[in-house]
Amino acid sequence: MRATLYGGPGDITVGERPDPRLETPADAVVRVTLGCVCGSDLWYYRGDNPHALGPIGHEFIGVVEQAGAEVTTVRPGDLVVAPFTFCDGTCATCAAGWPSNCLNGGSFGNNGVDGGQGEYVRVPYADATLVKVPGGGHSDATLKSLLALSDVMCTGHHAAVSAGVKPGDTVAVVGDGAVGLCAVIAAKRRGAERIIALSRNPARQALAREFGATDVLAERGDDATKLIMEMTGGIGVDAALECVGTGQSMATAFGVARVGSVVGAIGVPHDSVVPIQTVIFRNVGLRGGVAPARKYIPELLGDVLAGRINPGLVFDYETDLDGVNDAYNAMLDRRATKSLVRISAGQ
Amino acid sequence: MRATLYGGPGDITVGERPDPRLETPADAVVRVTLGCVCGSDLWYYRGDNPHALGPIGHEFIGVVEQAGAEVTTVRPGDLVVAPFTFCDGTCATCAAGWPSNCLNGGSFGNNGVDGGQGEYVRVPYADATLVKVPGGGHSDATLKSLLALSDVMCTGHHAAVSAGVKPGDTVAVVGDGAVGLCAVIAAKRRGAERIIALSRNPARQALAREFGATDVLAERGDDATKLIMEMTGGIGVDAALECVGTGQSMATAFGVARVGSVVGAIGVPHDSVVPIQTVIFRNVGLRGGVAPARKYIPELLGDVLAGRINPGLVFDYETDLDGVNDAYNAMLDRRATKSLVRISAGQ
Repeated sequence: MRATLYGGPGDITVGERPDPRLETPADAVVRVTLGCVCGSDLWYYRGDNPHALGPIGHEFIGVVEQAGAEVTTVRPGDLVVAPFTFCDGTCATCAAGWPSNCLNGGSFGNNGVDGGQGEYVRVPYADATLVKVPGGGHSDATLKSLLALSDVMCTGHHAAVSAGVKPGDTVAVVGDGAVGLCAVIAAKRRGAERIIALSRNPARQALAREFGATDVLAERGDDATKLIMEMTGGIGVDAALECVGTGQSMATAFGVARVGSVVGAIGVPHDSVVPIQTVIFRNVGLRGGVAPARKYIPELLGDVLAGRINPGLVFDYETDLDGVNDAYNAMLDRRATKSLVRISAGQ
Repeated sequence: MRATLYGGPGDITVGERPDPRLETPADAVVRVTLGCVCGSDLWYYRGDNPHALGPIGHEFIGVVEQAGAEVTTVRPGDLVVAPFTFCDGTCATCAAGWPSNCLNGGSFGNNGVDGGQGEYVRVPYADATLVKVPGGGHSDATLKSLLALSDVMCTGHHAAVSAGVKPGDTVAVVGDGAVGLCAVIAAKRRGAERIIALSRNPARQALAREFGATDVLAERGDDATKLIMEMTGGIGVDAALECVGTGQSMATAFGVARVGSVVGAIGVPHDSVVPIQTVIFRNVGLRGGVAPARKYIPELLGDVLAGRINPGLVFDYETDLDGVNDAYNAMLDRRATKSLVRISAGQ
C-alpha cells in the first residue's frame, strides 16, 4: 500500500508499506478514506519533537476492510471513526475512563503501527478502539466533521470538560488553531454564555465567531490578559482553555482565570511553566492533557450527525495522498489551519 | 494589650499593642483564648518569606468581647472560631465560595489587623468571618480541635476536597506536618480505604496511624515514589495530597498520582515546579491552594463536637503568651509538630 512516511525533520514523502493484515483476532483492517495533519505532526516535521522514521499520522476515518474473529462491534463495510490512540478497553486506566492512557495502547503511526496518513491501517483492539458511524449517505461536510472527532474536536472538548465549563459561564480560549476553534465549539455546546477567543487571523476570527465566540481579541500576552480582566470586571473568566502549549499561552490562561476556576490545558507543552503561585494563592487549578477521545466520540457523534456541531469546518485546505507534503507545508506556512488528505473514496 | 510581635527574622517577642476597639459596626472584638503557631509563621521567622513588622499569628479561637451594631450572628460571650482570613461574605469571590480570596478580606496579623497570637483581635466583617460554637463546657481536647479548624484542619480538608478524595480511594499524603496529618483525617473522613502517609518521625507516624493512615512509609523522594507505585500495582494512587510545598514533595505527589487523578496541593510553594509533562501526558490535574476555611468550618465543626475527628491532637507542645518565642523555636527545632499558645482562660 501507499502511505505517508516520516524521514526526519522536513522529510515527508509518500512511499510503499506492506499491506496490513490481521495479526490478532481482535484486529481490524481499515481502508482510510479521510486523513489529516495534526499540529503535533508539525512538531515532528520541524524537528522540535522526535518521531520514529516510517509511517505517520494519527487521525482518520475509513471503512472496515477486514475484521478479526473476535471483533463484534464492527464489520467489513462499516464506516468508522478511529480515535488517535488505540486502546484495549479493559486495563485499569481504560476502566477508569482514560483510554488515551491505555496501559496496552498506543498512538497510530508509532511503534510499527500503521499511520493514519496511508491507505490502510491495522487497528489493534478494534472493538475497544473504533466507533461505528450509524446510517449512510453522509455528506462530505459530515464526513469532515467525523474526521475532526478523531482528535481535534475531542481535544477541544477535553479542554472544556477539564475546565468544567458549565451553562452561563464566561470562557476564554487561548489559541486559534484547529483545537482552539474546536474548544470554542465545545464551550458553546456546554452552554457558555460568553466566549472570548484570542485570534489575530481574520479567517480564524470569522470561524471562531461562527462556532460561538462572542468576543474575538487580537491582543496577545499581557495585553490580552489585561483586556480580559477589564472585560470581566477585574474578576477573570470562569474557565480558561489553554490550547497552545507555550509559556505565553499558559501565562495568559492563568492570568485571566478567576479565583477557584480551572485552566483546561490540552496544548502539548513546549517551554510552558505552570505559575504555581497563582495555583496556590488564587486557587486556580489545572486539568487536561491527552484527550480520552474514545470516551468522547460516542457523545459527540450524535451532535455531528444531527448537524448541531460542525467541527469539520476547521479543514481549510485539502489534497490527496500525493499532495501530503504540501498538506504539511500549508500548515507550516500558515496557509492552512488544518489540512485534509483525501486518501480513498467511499464511506 | 499584650501581643506577639514580629521584629524581623529570628525576632519574636511579646509587647504592648493598643487595645482593639470596634472601628465599624460590622466589627467584633474577640478575646483570644487559644492561639498557635503556623508552619507559614516559621517561613517569616526564618526570613524566607517577608512579613510586616508588628502583630503576627492568624489562627485563634476566643470569646466575643464586643460586637458592632450591625453584627447579628455572634454576641458578647459567644465562643467563636476564626478562620485564618477575614472576609466580607458578599464579594464576587466570596459569593463563588472562595472566602479566603475575598476581594475585601485579608489575613490576621497583616496590614494593621491584629494577630491571633495576642490577647484581643478586632475581627472585620464579624458576621461573615466568625463561626459561633454551639453549646458550652467543652473539654480542653475539644477546644484544641476547634482551634485546629482555624487553619490546619481546613487546609488538610482542602487538599482532600481539591483532589476529589472519595469512598474507597487509595490516597497518598506527602508531608507529615500538622496539615499533612490533618489531610490524613480528611482523607479518612471522606471514605478513603487506604491512606499512605509519608513520615520518618516516630511520633508523627503514630499520629498518622491514629488518624487513619493504613501505611506509613519512611522513604522520601524517588524511593517513596517507587515504593508507592509498587504498592499500587504500578497504577498509582487515586489522590495524592501535597502538603509541603517543595520541589521534592510536588515531584513525589505527581510521581505517584494515577492517570486521570488530581494532586491536591496546599503547601505554600517554595521552589516547587509542576511537572507539566505529567499533567499533559498522564492527565494528572492540580488543584488546591489557600483553603476557604470559612466555608469548611461549619461542616467540620459538627464532627469535632461529636468527637468524630480530633485534629487538636496535632498540638504536641504548649505554652502561654510569655513563652511564645519558644513556641516558635520548638517547631523550628522540630521538638514540636505544632505549638499551642494559651492566651487567656475561659470559653
